[in-house]
Amino acid sequence: MEPVERVTRHFQDELEQLKARLLEMGGLAEEHVRLAVQGLMTRDRPVLDRVLVADEAVNRLHLEVDNRCFKLLALYQPMAADLRTIVSAVKINADLERVGDLAVNIAEAARRYAGHAPVKKLIDIPLMADIAQNMLRDALDSFVRRDVDLAQHVLDEDDRLDALKTQIFRELLTYMLQDPTTIEPALDLILVSRHLERIGDHATNVAEDVIFIVSARDVRHHSVQGRP
Amino acid sequence: MEPVERVTRHFQDELEQLKARLLEMGGLAEEHVRLAVQGLMTRDRPVLDRVLVADEAVNRLHLEVDNRCFKLLALYQPMAADLRTIVSAVKINADLERVGDLAVNIAEAARRYAGHAPVKKLIDIPLMADIAQNMLRDALDSFVRRDVDLAQHVLDEDDRLDALKTQIFRELLTYMLQDPTTIEPALDLILVSRHLERIGDHATNVAEDVIFIVSARDVRHHSVQGRP
Repeated sequence: MEPVERVTRHFQDELEQLKARLLEMGGLAEEHVRLAVQGLMTRDRPVLDRVLVADEAVNRLHLEVDNRCFKLLALYQPMAADLRTIVSAVKINADLERVGDLAVNIAEAARRYAGHAPVKKLIDIPLMADIAQNMLRDALDSFVRRDVDLAQHVLDEDDRLDALKTQIFRELLTYMLQDPTTIEPALDLILVSRHLERIGDHATNVAEDVIFIVSARDVRHHSVQGRP
Repeated sequence: MEPVERVTRHFQDELEQLKARLLEMGGLAEEHVRLAVQGLMTRDRPVLDRVLVADEAVNRLHLEVDNRCFKLLALYQPMAADLRTIVSAVKINADLERVGDLAVNIAEAARRYAGHAPVKKLIDIPLMADIAQNMLRDALDSFVRRDVDLAQHVLDEDDRLDALKTQIFRELLTYMLQDPTTIEPALDLILVSRHLERIGDHATNVAEDVIFIVSARDVRHHSVQGRP
């Protein structure tokens, strides 16, 4: 093998490993969100405690991915699409780390919530969680597969999530106004719905980065007109 | 001038311009936070409307800074400290853009709040805003001056901000439980205090990046023991 080929091969191997680590991190973050919402629904404190401890693994991957990005830039000085992929990986890494933090925030709110009588049947909170988790998974899949259509789908789903958040807020406000004993637990549910909305925002950031990587087109701060 | 020197000079000029744009963006975001909290205090709708429109300028700078980072990496393939500076600029840029968004969120909550009777004297909310703005300014100063002590100071201030947020939450909860007419406006104040806390989190992210740039030491996800 020629030296240049060998360097290229090494670089591609390293890039694949970087993507694998980001996927692993995304999978963990998604699992923690799922556990936190499950713990909220079933009032299961051991499950919630597990989420608080498990974030350590996401944080370790966060540092590792940043180091990998930095080394890839320093050692291989990549160009064009490869450079865009690595710069985007730096940002996606930051987004996934925040999703992990938000899972912890949900678990903390759920622990407080478990100390009160349940406010409502919580049908919309698990729905919000499902949408947010799917958005995250689709965003990461779109990154690995360079799938602009799937990334665009993530952007579209964010509107559904926002609408649900607004609806949940109104509903909970009604409960709080009718019955002051619901104020504290309803506040925690409002916070949970906002954490889920922010997880959707992070998935949206990832999807926007994918569109940037693949098409070198920046869709941020623009209204997206039709599919590419 | 030798060609290599000329390239180095160009690169340093470009790097200075990149820092200048980040400072400009930080200054704008900080000003928008100040205006949003001022509008909340004085119930001044025109001021709040100005914040909503002004975010456009922050978004434009966000795109410009990302492009500058990308071009610097592609054209000059910088190494070591310069590479760390540019990779960190990508992240700082994302943080500053979110601070602009949070100023908008505060202005939106303030507009709703202005539709109700005031809940309380709001002494702690402007205090939180002052701390968050100072953290942001110090974080950006520490980036430009490569000042690790100042960056460490920002990390320390974040604890004060968190304590104030918790105190405000307890106080507002008491009002809500005593008098249901305060529920809606108190909810908006709780949201504002959380937006301010998140602005402090973004300043903390910037400060952590500065410590990484200067000392190649990663302080994230570690308890910081003493000053370097």
